[in-house]
Amino acid sequence: MVDSRFHPSDSQGLHSLASLAAAVGARVAVASEGDWVVTSVAALESATPQDLSFLSESKYRKILAVTRAGAVILRTEDMEFAPNHCRLMVSDHPYRSFARIGQILFPPLRVPNGIHPSAVVDPSATIGAGCAIAAGAVIGRGVRLGANCQIGAQSVIGDQVELGDDCEIGAMVTISHAILGNRVKLQPGVRIGQAGFGFIMDQGRAIPLLQLGLVILEDGVEIGANSTVDRGANDNTIIGAGSMIDNLCQIGHNVVMGAGCVLSSQVGISGSVTVGRGVRMGGQVGIKDHVTIGDGATLAARAGVIGDVPAGVTVGGYPALPLKEHFRQVAMIKKLAARGRQDS
Amino acid sequence: MVDSRFHPSDSQGLHSLASLAAAVGARVAVASEGDWVVTSVAALESATPQDLSFLSESKYRKILAVTRAGAVILRTEDMEFAPNHCRLMVSDHPYRSFARIGQILFPPLRVPNGIHPSAVVDPSATIGAGCAIAAGAVIGRGVRLGANCQIGAQSVIGDQVELGDDCEIGAMVTISHAILGNRVKLQPGVRIGQAGFGFIMDQGRAIPLLQLGLVILEDGVEIGANSTVDRGANDNTIIGAGSMIDNLCQIGHNVVMGAGCVLSSQVGISGSVTVGRGVRMGGQVGIKDHVTIGDGATLAARAGVIGDVPAGVTVGGYPALPLKEHFRQVAMIKKLAARGRQDS
Amino acid sequence: MVDSRFHPSDSQGLHSLASLAAAVGARVAVASEGDWVVTSVAALESATPQDLSFLSESKYRKILAVTRAGAVILRTEDMEFAPNHCRLMVSDHPYRSFARIGQILFPPLRVPNGIHPSAVVDPSATIGAGCAIAAGAVIGRGVRLGANCQIGAQSVIGDQVELGDDCEIGAMVTISHAILGNRVKLQPGVRIGQAGFGFIMDQGRAIPLLQLGLVILEDGVEIGANSTVDRGANDNTIIGAGSMIDNLCQIGHNVVMGAGCVLSSQVGISGSVTVGRGVRMGGQVGIKDHVTIGDGATLAARAGVIGDVPAGVTVGGYPALPLKEHFRQVAMIKKLAARGRQDS
Repeated sequence: MVDSRFHPSDSQGLHSLASLAAAVGARVAVASEGDWVVTSVAALESATPQDLSFLSESKYRKILAVTRAGAVILRTEDMEFAPNHCRLMVSDHPYRSFARIGQILFPPLRVPNGIHPSAVVDPSATIGAGCAIAAGAVIGRGVRLGANCQIGAQSVIGDQVELGDDCEIGAMVTISHAILGNRVKLQPGVRIGQAGFGFIMDQGRAIPLLQLGLVILEDGVEIGANSTVDRGANDNTIIGAGSMIDNLCQIGHNVVMGAGCVLSSQVGISGSVTVGRGVRMGGQVGIKDHVTIGDGATLAARAGVIGDVPAGVTVGGYPALPLKEHFRQVAMIKKLAARGRQDS
Repeated sequence: MVDSRFHPSDSQGLHSLASLAAAVGARVAVASEGDWVVTSVAALESATPQDLSFLSESKYRKILAVTRAGAVILRTEDMEFAPNHCRLMVSDHPYRSFARIGQILFPPLRVPNGIHPSAVVDPSATIGAGCAIAAGAVIGRGVRLGANCQIGAQSVIGDQVELGDDCEIGAMVTISHAILGNRVKLQPGVRIGQAGFGFIMDQGRAIPLLQLGLVILEDGVEIGANSTVDRGANDNTIIGAGSMIDNLCQIGHNVVMGAGCVLSSQVGISGSVTVGRGVRMGGQVGIKDHVTIGDGATLAARAGVIGDVPAGVTVGGYPALPLKEHFRQVAMIKKLAARGRQDS
Repeated sequence: MVDSRFHPSDSQGLHSLASLAAAVGARVAVASEGDWVVTSVAALESATPQDLSFLSESKYRKILAVTRAGAVILRTEDMEFAPNHCRLMVSDHPYRSFARIGQILFPPLRVPNGIHPSAVVDPSATIGAGCAIAAGAVIGRGVRLGANCQIGAQSVIGDQVELGDDCEIGAMVTISHAILGNRVKLQPGVRIGQAGFGFIMDQGRAIPLLQLGLVILEDGVEIGANSTVDRGANDNTIIGAGSMIDNLCQIGHNVVMGAGCVLSSQVGISGSVTVGRGVRMGGQVGIKDHVTIGDGATLAARAGVIGDVPAGVTVGGYPALPLKEHFRQVAMIKKLAARGRQDS
């Protein structure tokens, strides 16, 4: 049951099971149940009689059988396993239908439009229509915000930074030396555009190199809490459209990442790495500088990548190898250690 | 010697060696030395004649022998190894006695009560007696702070968030979608309650899933600087009472952690992991999503855990194995590599 | 081509190729080309006819041959491989010359001197000449800032903290219990001086230990975004002069690090580790508590260090071994797995 204090449901009107089914291309199994009003959602295990839930895979039928949910979204072949009290919505993609219904029931909360009196906005900044700038935010010289942007409390947008339309910047974000597309979403504490880690050694002393590039975040990029993206040295650091980056990730200077990449938490990408389109990385992956990762490659969690990865290939382990090879090594070591144990 | 500018000692009165010994259930070896006034503490190596120090283990007797400390807490059997100039306090648990005396001598500094004029507090918020809200802090709609809470400078407490009594929130913390118990302590830069990393792939595009849960931090939870705890998707993310989490850790959505866990720095716990009571994790541990860790288990530093860990078991390595098995593999590899070297 | 909106070039005057060559001890190959005015710089691949570029190593001569750069810095032996349209500056150290010219062309931007009206500065603080304190910054009781310090927006400088001259503190930094030398540079989101992670177990409960030390950052230390440095327990945490630390690193309490160390991103150093002078660490390195790393040692990326490392030695892998030994193990495992594959 969703806590409506924190996640208030759509205040525009009531949503019946039938109207929601229609909205997502699903159908209500028993037409007379279509009038039931949906106000909350939950997972099968924790659902109450007030909740709409879903069965994503047939292997969870046992959980379905004992759910207390008022209604469940499921596939035709799972209908017979639902308890009698459950209203049923039939969908070919129950999880996707559930996700889209959630977005109808719980539209994103908006902070009130306008500029909070405690915000500090430079007079030379251009603020688009419908923007909301929260308490304490600092907007620098020449900044340009598109329409309907939200800037969280205390966030600092540096001189000349540009945001497209509909960006959501969380609290305590810093952005400098950067150009953001539309619908970019940054969680609290994200750091964009600070100087990258570059220097040359001169008689044993590290001399910092100028970092004269920018960060480009293309449309729809989302970045998790406390992650960091450094600006380029002589070129730009670029994150491709729709890429999703989890918390506490590090993206070094001059990284160029294609569209639609997905990075789990604590990934570290060194400087000048090239990442193709649609690349997926598990948690705590690390990539050496100047390496190239091909389109659609997958880097398993913890992979330590020290050389190029061809398109479409899945690698794991350290040093990272094609996943099958990595598994073969793990199994071989296990076997040898077990044998050694018998010998001794 | 403690720098009293940064760590002022108790202004309420002077503490004699005898009174401190009495307070922690220890005794002064030579009664006439009990009047010595204790004003500072230090480790044996760096102690000055003004410092009280301690010997935690007999193996450090050589350091004891040359300490300059004015007084030392130690066990009976170590007394004869102390230099003549040292006053001695005898305790069965010297380190614990030292820790408790430190808390008497250096009571926690409190920021002045009240709300700093630059803080932005929504009129609908409820602020308990004795709270201190520092400069620039932002307190949202419907927030409830218990008694004696401290909110650090610039921190942002989102709408409806609840804190129990005696919470200490550092500077630049963000909390949203969360309920905190009593005595919760968050270091600077902690991020609580932002949306977790959830999406479904739809025709190669990642569609974000609503994150409709909360974060629950039970009584006495402490979290280190710049760590992140995401709110649950359909259920809540829960950190059990008294759990201590170090800096730069990531706790994914729907993680449920029992009481009394201890996590060292840079640990990453993926979504929907279940952690029992009293689990200990070394630095840079990573845990795969949906895994269960039993009560009292220990995950050695750097362990990469991809399957369930039974209660009480210690694992290490990647993929994580029972520690003995991990060590056996490491030794076996070493042996084989050395042999290969002789062969070649 | 540098984006001059974000990186405005020196407003003091024009710089000719000849004057820049003279400033860095290089020479223009064809004297008549020395009058060319340099306004921008770029890497060879992306340079335009308005850019000065450089060739760092002869192996990139193919890139040189097709560059569009208006001028290039290179060694004598590479001159014949440059395209005809390029003006040439000859240097024994092209990269270093380029770096120094960049610093002449793009002097660091300064925020305007003075204290922003929204900053909160305690009357007992001492602010040196030429300091700039940005919007929302909070300066505590007894703080002392040297001359020409910059404090970024929202940053919180705790009571009694001391900074030397010419420090650059980014936005949203927190500093407490710390003394900083001259020319210290902290990127946004850095956390300095919070309590370290220390406790003793008492009947299964973790009792926090007082953290009564400080953080000392010596002259010229630079720390990357969202990194954390805890203050010492009974002694101080010390980072040696000129050390450079990348983003998202963790430095535990009581770490003592020598001068001139270089740490890549996501390194974690546990409490009470001693690091010598000039030590280099790759990304995601982890070091166990109480370990000692000798002067000039190198820890390869991802090394998991659980024992002392002698001066000058390079280690890698986990548990970390001398690099050659680590490579030998990796090769041996690969060979055995390949053999196992043939057998099966």
